[in-house]
Amino acid sequence: MLKTNVETFLGCEAELADARIVIFGAPFDSTTSFRPGTRFASKVMRGESYGLETYSPYQDLDMEDAAVFDSGDLELCFGDTETALKDIEERTAEILAAGKLPFMIGGEHLVTLGAIRAAVKKYPDLHILHFDAHTDLREEYLGAKLSHASVLRRAWELTGDGRIWQLGIRSGLREEFRWAKEHTNLRPFNLKAMPEALAALQGKPVYFTIDLDVMDPSVFPGTGTPEYGGVTFGELMEAAVAGCGLNVVGCDLVELSPAYDQSGASTAAALKIMREMLLKLEEPFIKGPVQV
Amino acid sequence: MLKTNVETFLGCEAELADARIVIFGAPFDSTTSFRPGTRFASKVMRGESYGLETYSPYQDLDMEDAAVFDSGDLELCFGDTETALKDIEERTAEILAAGKLPFMIGGEHLVTLGAIRAAVKKYPDLHILHFDAHTDLREEYLGAKLSHASVLRRAWELTGDGRIWQLGIRSGLREEFRWAKEHTNLRPFNLKAMPEALAALQGKPVYFTIDLDVMDPSVFPGTGTPEYGGVTFGELMEAAVAGCGLNVVGCDLVELSPAYDQSGASTAAALKIMREMLLKLEEPFIKGPVQV
Amino acid sequence: MLKTNVETFLGCEAELADARIVIFGAPFDSTTSFRPGTRFASKVMRGESYGLETYSPYQDLDMEDAAVFDSGDLELCFGDTETALKDIEERTAEILAAGKLPFMIGGEHLVTLGAIRAAVKKYPDLHILHFDAHTDLREEYLGAKLSHASVLRRAWELTGDGRIWQLGIRSGLREEFRWAKEHTNLRPFNLKAMPEALAALQGKPVYFTIDLDVMDPSVFPGTGTPEYGGVTFGELMEAAVAGCGLNVVGCDLVELSPAYDQSGASTAAALKIMREMLLKLEEPFIKGPVQV
Amino acid sequence: MLKTNVETFLGCEAELADARIVIFGAPFDSTTSFRPGTRFASKVMRGESYGLETYSPYQDLDMEDAAVFDSGDLELCFGDTETALKDIEERTAEILAAGKLPFMIGGEHLVTLGAIRAAVKKYPDLHILHFDAHTDLREEYLGAKLSHASVLRRAWELTGDGRIWQLGIRSGLREEFRWAKEHTNLRPFNLKAMPEALAALQGKPVYFTIDLDVMDPSVFPGTGTPEYGGVTFGELMEAAVAGCGLNVVGCDLVELSPAYDQSGASTAAALKIMREMLLKLEEPFIKGPVQV
Amino acid sequence: MLKTNVETFLGCEAELADARIVIFGAPFDSTTSFRPGTRFASKVMRGESYGLETYSPYQDLDMEDAAVFDSGDLELCFGDTETALKDIEERTAEILAAGKLPFMIGGEHLVTLGAIRAAVKKYPDLHILHFDAHTDLREEYLGAKLSHASVLRRAWELTGDGRIWQLGIRSGLREEFRWAKEHTNLRPFNLKAMPEALAALQGKPVYFTIDLDVMDPSVFPGTGTPEYGGVTFGELMEAAVAGCGLNVVGCDLVELSPAYDQSGASTAAALKIMREMLLKLEEPFIKGPVQV
Amino acid sequence: MLKTNVETFLGCEAELADARIVIFGAPFDSTTSFRPGTRFASKVMRGESYGLETYSPYQDLDMEDAAVFDSGDLELCFGDTETALKDIEERTAEILAAGKLPFMIGGEHLVTLGAIRAAVKKYPDLHILHFDAHTDLREEYLGAKLSHASVLRRAWELTGDGRIWQLGIRSGLREEFRWAKEHTNLRPFNLKAMPEALAALQGKPVYFTIDLDVMDPSVFPGTGTPEYGGVTFGELMEAAVAGCGLNVVGCDLVELSPAYDQSGASTAAALKIMREMLLKLEEPFIKGPVQV
Repeated sequence: MLKTNVETFLGCEAELADARIVIFGAPFDSTTSFRPGTRFASKVMRGESYGLETYSPYQDLDMEDAAVFDSGDLELCFGDTETALKDIEERTAEILAAGKLPFMIGGEHLVTLGAIRAAVKKYPDLHILHFDAHTDLREEYLGAKLSHASVLRRAWELTGDGRIWQLGIRSGLREEFRWAKEHTNLRPFNLKAMPEALAALQGKPVYFTIDLDVMDPSVFPGTGTPEYGGVTFGELMEAAVAGCGLNVVGCDLVELSPAYDQSGASTAAALKIMREMLLKLEEPFIKGPVQV
Repeated sequence: MLKTNVETFLGCEAELADARIVIFGAPFDSTTSFRPGTRFASKVMRGESYGLETYSPYQDLDMEDAAVFDSGDLELCFGDTETALKDIEERTAEILAAGKLPFMIGGEHLVTLGAIRAAVKKYPDLHILHFDAHTDLREEYLGAKLSHASVLRRAWELTGDGRIWQLGIRSGLREEFRWAKEHTNLRPFNLKAMPEALAALQGKPVYFTIDLDVMDPSVFPGTGTPEYGGVTFGELMEAAVAGCGLNVVGCDLVELSPAYDQSGASTAAALKIMREMLLKLEEPFIKGPVQV
Repeated sequence: MLKTNVETFLGCEAELADARIVIFGAPFDSTTSFRPGTRFASKVMRGESYGLETYSPYQDLDMEDAAVFDSGDLELCFGDTETALKDIEERTAEILAAGKLPFMIGGEHLVTLGAIRAAVKKYPDLHILHFDAHTDLREEYLGAKLSHASVLRRAWELTGDGRIWQLGIRSGLREEFRWAKEHTNLRPFNLKAMPEALAALQGKPVYFTIDLDVMDPSVFPGTGTPEYGGVTFGELMEAAVAGCGLNVVGCDLVELSPAYDQSGASTAAALKIMREMLLKLEEPFIKGPVQV
Repeated sequence: MLKTNVETFLGCEAELADARIVIFGAPFDSTTSFRPGTRFASKVMRGESYGLETYSPYQDLDMEDAAVFDSGDLELCFGDTETALKDIEERTAEILAAGKLPFMIGGEHLVTLGAIRAAVKKYPDLHILHFDAHTDLREEYLGAKLSHASVLRRAWELTGDGRIWQLGIRSGLREEFRWAKEHTNLRPFNLKAMPEALAALQGKPVYFTIDLDVMDPSVFPGTGTPEYGGVTFGELMEAAVAGCGLNVVGCDLVELSPAYDQSGASTAAALKIMREMLLKLEEPFIKGPVQV
Repeated sequence: MLKTNVETFLGCEAELADARIVIFGAPFDSTTSFRPGTRFASKVMRGESYGLETYSPYQDLDMEDAAVFDSGDLELCFGDTETALKDIEERTAEILAAGKLPFMIGGEHLVTLGAIRAAVKKYPDLHILHFDAHTDLREEYLGAKLSHASVLRRAWELTGDGRIWQLGIRSGLREEFRWAKEHTNLRPFNLKAMPEALAALQGKPVYFTIDLDVMDPSVFPGTGTPEYGGVTFGELMEAAVAGCGLNVVGCDLVELSPAYDQSGASTAAALKIMREMLLKLEEPFIKGPVQV
Repeated sequence: MLKTNVETFLGCEAELADARIVIFGAPFDSTTSFRPGTRFASKVMRGESYGLETYSPYQDLDMEDAAVFDSGDLELCFGDTETALKDIEERTAEILAAGKLPFMIGGEHLVTLGAIRAAVKKYPDLHILHFDAHTDLREEYLGAKLSHASVLRRAWELTGDGRIWQLGIRSGLREEFRWAKEHTNLRPFNLKAMPEALAALQGKPVYFTIDLDVMDPSVFPGTGTPEYGGVTFGELMEAAVAGCGLNVVGCDLVELSPAYDQSGASTAAALKIMREMLLKLEEPFIKGPVQV
């Protein structure tokens, strides 16, 4: 029988009503300062996802047992940042209101601000777990307060001091690193502080945002601002799965810019991180609640 | 409201019941002799189609008024040619049985054979209008009778002498050109014989197959076997629209291999040809039947 | 002697005081709807310009005799469109105030609005000569009034009916083509209406804006929205030179997106058009005033 | 003196009569499920091999002392899998019959089946050492039993239980991993089980097949199905050399797809692995038999 | 039977003794001023030649009837220009001494000087037919007298005034164009002066050198210095064939730089020109001497 | 105010008089044996440098406090090696004469010879610290004594035995490795011998030359001759900074070939190494002399 052409991330084919996690794409890159192109990430990832298997031998879990709904991509207005953020906030709020977990695929890192605005309304005690190469703590960038270089600074205005954990950071202004000492928990260069972060965030509502450029450019060249000295794929996978063992109320993967990696490998890296995160988030429901 | 992610060619969003034309992709390239990659054409074209407008200033017609259904891509078995052809034949037959016109996006040129097998069953008097750089008339290729280099030869076995019109041809074996003199109406190098072909095909049931490499590689480098000396975009657009004024009972566009044109322009060329063909095919229904 | 590293377009090395033409880059692409990347055009063009000669055998004129100053690129705020346009307007106004002719290198087509805002203040009777594949006449795009798809509509709000000549147009909404019939002089598909446009614009102060995608993608694939059916390089060169024989008070070249043409040829095309335009604009001063 | 143009892998210029190892290419990729292109591997490797040195500082051995004959590439029929496998089997059998060691360059992984069919006829006790990212143990793929996703399953039908060692595996269906527990010695994720495998395979006739995608995509992006979490170059080189210390009766390197790594580095990786393997296989003859 | 791996241009497989034409590659690009890479042309062309057919429907001739020997590529010393030129001169002289016609594949245009040095020794009355975008008449380039920008000037020193015909030229210094008026027959912009050139060169010993960048970059982007305003493929093919009807004693195709055209189309263009030239040169021997 | 377009490496904007370090580019690659393209390194690095921050969180130092002057690129003669080397020697000598430290950006490795010729004249006791994948110790290459494959051999002729430390080497002729045992301090495969080298070089005038291909191609694919088995980015950064703690009298970074890494990541790697080296070299002046 002829059917209309539905496209979803591999293994994310649950009915909306059954789903515990809802994916959406936020294809926006208007404030990108160096090299744009992250707008294509969600579309390319969806298309390439069928090159991956649904089964994870690492966790011995299979996406076929998960309940994930793919609600497609938002149609965001390029050049009008505030409008785009509002659309993202609305979509996130809608998912949260339905009692489901929003999983956003960027776009540039600024899209995270829209999701956090919605999350903090529902969870006033929201904490943030942030993996990145860059501080993203600028007060402004060339006069703009809404920029992918200032997204965590804007998020901090919503959460206040001490609620943001920043790991893997290896690039920023001197001022940003100094400012972070007062206001966030910044652990530079790698993800070795994860045990510390996990302990501090235990039981808190956590928004988990991963700027994929936390990986070394040797692993992940497909991004706008490659910054060497990053973590390996294995280190990120392990930490991302660990983070998903927290009380995650929303999460995202941002800053994949597929055109900068002609081999397609960066997209494959993003997809595998995404699969492992989804499986970890779904694990309690697949295996039954963890026994104490 | 959250909805599942439906993806169609731009402007091809009719309900199946209402549609007069049904599109499908045939992502197959296993017999490609030189450089594979046409399997990605339909997917990439669908994704890029939103870079085009629905309106044609050439014909003053708009896809918004057309009734086209996009049934997505077949999942074809690579490495098992006969099975793949059967799946294509079935899909084509199903569309024909529903009284609709099948519009196939290849894949390599061999996919045309599957569609023609279905069409000739419904229309025993089937004629073929064929634009191409290559004769495609080999008896076999490295021992294989099913090859993109022999597709028109196989089609001739179904239609017999004199029913195939081949235009734009500029590459082949000496034997093929000689064989064509006896069995097909081959008009080499360009599309200037279109008036002759149109006259001959008037009123006949026509399967219209366009190997996009009929265009010059300066226009259309995104193909497996670039062959210089081809036609311009404007020449192809004009002839393709003219061909769609015939009694077309099925058609296809084949041999776009998007990875060979990093600029994306070749994909844009294919899409614009496709839009103009769809509009011409739909013209009688948009404007009302032609008055006599 | 060690000197600081000055980089200019080839042959554009006049002192500011001596220059009649001032070049500047406007690297902005935040509102680009399809594929961004025009922000890199001015930088890449400057770097590649030494692959061209200063001498034109077409006009028998040499850039060594021209008086052009290259003032480098603006640093524009991505994601804040209005601020970016103000910066462009200021730079243009400064050049006009100095009695010189501004020659802007985009960036996306919206940058033209900044320049026209400045030009129309100095020349209230400003007319516009516009080469493009696209109408650019949308009232808005996804809610944004400032978009590269609406730049000529915004320009029309400054000039009023009948003062804009649009040539080469072959893509747009049905509504835009209809709107154009009332408000602009749109001549679709090619540049054959140049004699008519030249006659109408004779003696008027003219802002001349060339969206390089007016060229066919076979000639110029390096652009965000390739649209087949365009003009050849020779046709554009001839018309661009002819346009520069008018009373041009400002001009620009926009929408080169170098990363989409890995061969570098599109950049070379833009540079050669630029050289021929500069030489034609400078011709009266090189040869002395035209004798009557 | 003018000579005909002979092309061989660097340092593989022995006369056939003198050679102990015979190289051949098997350019076939018709069953590749995701991204084709491995057909170009042998040709590109041969061309790029002169960027490498003949001398290995790791083993202090030089290809100039080795006796390797390059018999060029087979001309395989795309789209007719069984015919292609027969041609590969014949070439392998011919080399084995001449008392030489066949060293095959793929192509996709299915080509290994042809070689193993020949090897198992000569060595009924054949064992297999298999490095790969993927299990390759499917019973069938989209209905085809001959697929690069099922090649080890087909090989198992020839060798029976317990004779296949699979290392580095990190992707597959849940069913494949479970099946492997009963039938093969699968050691997932890395090559750390090499001592165990070497011990088990000591003295056995071994066919050694390396799917180069066992390397991490950060090292080796030039492959059809990049799968993160793989081994480093150094780990593969060490294990490949160790494997060549066994009683190897045939071997291959498969799944390089050069077009997916525009930098050429993946090809260089394949070539260096190949050189080190050839030198280790030749070591007894270069240095004289190992003294006990 | 296992055979060593011989690689030749498609259809150029005659024995040396039988051949009338001898091909060789001259992979040298050390003096290239802008973008190097032509050193790869002959190797890539040879590899891609099997994507072409041996039969020409334009001339109704087949390479299978031609007698052409491919002697492979010279191994030239990069960075030592004079040594490289000597090696080229020697190879050319050897071919000429054997009574055969040398057909050289560059490399940059300077390689032509080596061939001409040999040709002028055998044919003191040597004339030159030169297709190019560039004058190549500089007295020197950055101090070097041996440069691809001065190759025709150096050739003129060997032939003297009036013996060089230059067609298609559209780029150079003002001085070069002026110098050409005194010393060569330069016909700028296109190939329309071919009848005039053919008449003048009738009966003379002619060295025919084609810088492939005479084609427009829309046709042939794969070159180091793209210069718009060039000829179409059809125009070049026609003129190249016409030129081969002269008394050609040596010829070459230079300046293909394959890496700048990722689509491979530029290489295909060069190969098709080459095939048509070879067939025209061989025509008298295929069809028997022309009857008078 | 309109200003001329000055372009420098990020943060290298000191006045010449104030600068302690002077950067210059040496865009030369005529002797490159395999794949040319390093001529573009300095230009591309300068352009991309604004994607990096001026601040180093590793050293807690900021380029804003450094005194570095960028004197732009030399204009070197391609194809005339000795002339190019003379120009490099002159520029280096001029910087040394001004009491400043020359920091050269290649170009191929041969450019180092020009700089060392100048340095050894001022510092007769010059020692060399050399990181590389390749020995670069050939007596000649295809007859040329001046080649990037022989640059350290030529340097040795100036310094004599025992003064050259070579780390990271993993490719060369057998003869080169043997020759090195007598004449240089070659420590193969990695940078673990740095403590030994640092001890030996303490207090000596050191020229520090880094061939960036010492990094593994997984980290740094953008080079002409990728050689696997190299060091990580972190290993190079640490060793490069340590080396800059010596009495460095000149240094360079060579063999980046940006076109071979379409992602731009290799360029980013080179830039970050450069920033860390500059900061270490400037550290004594930023923090004041080290206290004892």
